[in-house]
Amino acid sequence: MITSDILIIGAGPTGLFAVFEAGLLQLKCHLIDALPQPGGQLAELYPKKPIYDIPGYPEVLAGELVENLMEQIRPFQPGFTLGTRAETLEKQDDGTFIVTTADGTKHKAPVVAIAGGLGSFEPRKPQLPGLEAYEDKGVAYMVKDPEIYRGKRVLIAGGGDSALDWSIFLADIASELTLIHRRTEFRGALDSVEKVQELKDSGKIRLITPAEIVGLGGDGKVEFAEVQITGSEEAAERLEIDAFIPLFGLSPKLGPIGNWGLEIEKNAIRVDNTLDYQTNIPGVYAIGDVNTYPGKLKLILCGFHEATLMCQSAYQRIYPDKRYVMKYTTVGGITGFDGSRKEAPKAVVRSID
Amino acid sequence: MITSDILIIGAGPTGLFAVFEAGLLQLKCHLIDALPQPGGQLAELYPKKPIYDIPGYPEVLAGELVENLMEQIRPFQPGFTLGTRAETLEKQDDGTFIVTTADGTKHKAPVVAIAGGLGSFEPRKPQLPGLEAYEDKGVAYMVKDPEIYRGKRVLIAGGGDSALDWSIFLADIASELTLIHRRTEFRGALDSVEKVQELKDSGKIRLITPAEIVGLGGDGKVEFAEVQITGSEEAAERLEIDAFIPLFGLSPKLGPIGNWGLEIEKNAIRVDNTLDYQTNIPGVYAIGDVNTYPGKLKLILCGFHEATLMCQSAYQRIYPDKRYVMKYTTVGGITGFDGSRKEAPKAVVRSID
Repeated sequence: MITSDILIIGAGPTGLFAVFEAGLLQLKCHLIDALPQPGGQLAELYPKKPIYDIPGYPEVLAGELVENLMEQIRPFQPGFTLGTRAETLEKQDDGTFIVTTADGTKHKAPVVAIAGGLGSFEPRKPQLPGLEAYEDKGVAYMVKDPEIYRGKRVLIAGGGDSALDWSIFLADIASELTLIHRRTEFRGALDSVEKVQELKDSGKIRLITPAEIVGLGGDGKVEFAEVQITGSEEAAERLEIDAFIPLFGLSPKLGPIGNWGLEIEKNAIRVDNTLDYQTNIPGVYAIGDVNTYPGKLKLILCGFHEATLMCQSAYQRIYPDKRYVMKYTTVGGITGFDGSRKEAPKAVVRSID
Repeated sequence: MITSDILIIGAGPTGLFAVFEAGLLQLKCHLIDALPQPGGQLAELYPKKPIYDIPGYPEVLAGELVENLMEQIRPFQPGFTLGTRAETLEKQDDGTFIVTTADGTKHKAPVVAIAGGLGSFEPRKPQLPGLEAYEDKGVAYMVKDPEIYRGKRVLIAGGGDSALDWSIFLADIASELTLIHRRTEFRGALDSVEKVQELKDSGKIRLITPAEIVGLGGDGKVEFAEVQITGSEEAAERLEIDAFIPLFGLSPKLGPIGNWGLEIEKNAIRVDNTLDYQTNIPGVYAIGDVNTYPGKLKLILCGFHEATLMCQSAYQRIYPDKRYVMKYTTVGGITGFDGSRKEAPKAVVRSID
């Protein structure tokens, strides 16, 4: 059982910043995310793309913003449970909640903040007979830990940024890297496309296009894929592999959260925006893109504000008898749970003579 | 008459960011501020101090944040009327507003957004007979344009950061720079105190402490000050000067805005936080530290959110028949009123062979 003051579902920018605001109130956070790394969409979908509407940043790459947020919250030592989805929410008699993830981890907290963005990202799976049987037995739809592919024969399928970028990354790690796509054209950042061309020319990536995987086989784990060249009259050829990673995109789904008894409106969680972004279940909040209220804008900067007001309300819920007196960080500085201390240089009082 | 789509009262961080969000909606802004430069408190009171709670900035100097915001809004060409206070608000028959400043400038806009922070900063004035008569005739409580002191004999009074920093700055510009303080101890950033000591030692600043100004004189403009050494039995001495700048601090006052018919609560403007941060006067909004609502936090990041929702509502008010479809800046880029264009590098579609 992992315990925290605020259990945050979703480690995108809103969830991450909530850790900071909670930390100022001496509240400890733990985050759960279905993706293998923090940052949500910013890290998974467009880390190298610029964002122009973060206040104070004329331009910032999405991946950089995530790094900056991680640095900002570091003093408050958040815990992370990544690569697994929050499945169930149970209210305990003592008013606290237990959230259980798909991999069985249990989390207990007096406050749950859902910062789930557009939902948990579910992979689009290819239509392949017997595919499910090989999941986690050589077949994966996301790269959670690149190291497990070291020295292995890896087959990646797909034609977008993820397929390109992971082919580049794993080309150095895998013993054999094959990239297969149903077209000859790839769609992605110019430098990614060029890099794959280069790795293909130098023999580090084997490219098979236009082609599709039409079958998988193996005894208890995936051992081969059947590759069909598009338009060819020849039979599918067998390719011996240790791993198959189809990267056909992720689509966000509200998922199990939709069954937690929360008021859902237009695929989002209805919250009380007149005060604290609390849901219809007291103690459960929804912040960022996952919530809805009159005039809601799905902007990162709005999530930051919502996270901040949520933390104040969470504090009142956890410490009903205490009154928190806000101190500006410029005045009070930052004291981390790790003992670190940041503060403005003090003014001196000194004679000039 | 200066016209704009949104007239923003207050050029602090909230008012500045409103220009950006308005710009995304193709709305043009003009800002009025009583201070001589944009940035509000951040620029005037603590430009060299760090802020730790701007989302995505583990640490940023207040002055840097202002510079970044100015850079971020540059494509949207805001107008500025600085160094003068907004005095009156009149509603016109056509539903627009006219705001007149203390120096008589008139501003017309269909929407007024008050982003006045803690109010307009009013100087604390020394108790000196006849002081008012010399205002703008050699006596000033803020340095609006340092150049007017070039070659002049300048007397600064005060013992804090402003007195230290302006003494340092004007020592190079004035023909004679005298700094007077009622104590021998100064209170400020270490490097400022040290720099004044250095300039005093090298003769570029004349320091008179502990002392007070007890009188002013001159024909139609200030020509001398009477300097009384504290604890001395000798009579006050006459010091010939062209300018006297008492820097005894600024204190924020809600000021004339308090008489505009707005609902005031705890020295702040009550707004509708359930939708758009509008005041009791339709078309007049209040954003940032100047407003209040249940759960209000006076944080810069909250002002950013409020400014953003305000702009959406302003758009609907200005264009009741249009429907704005929000595009993320990462997807749509930024098109400035100056014709500038920023956008994410486009994905390429390219064969690899």
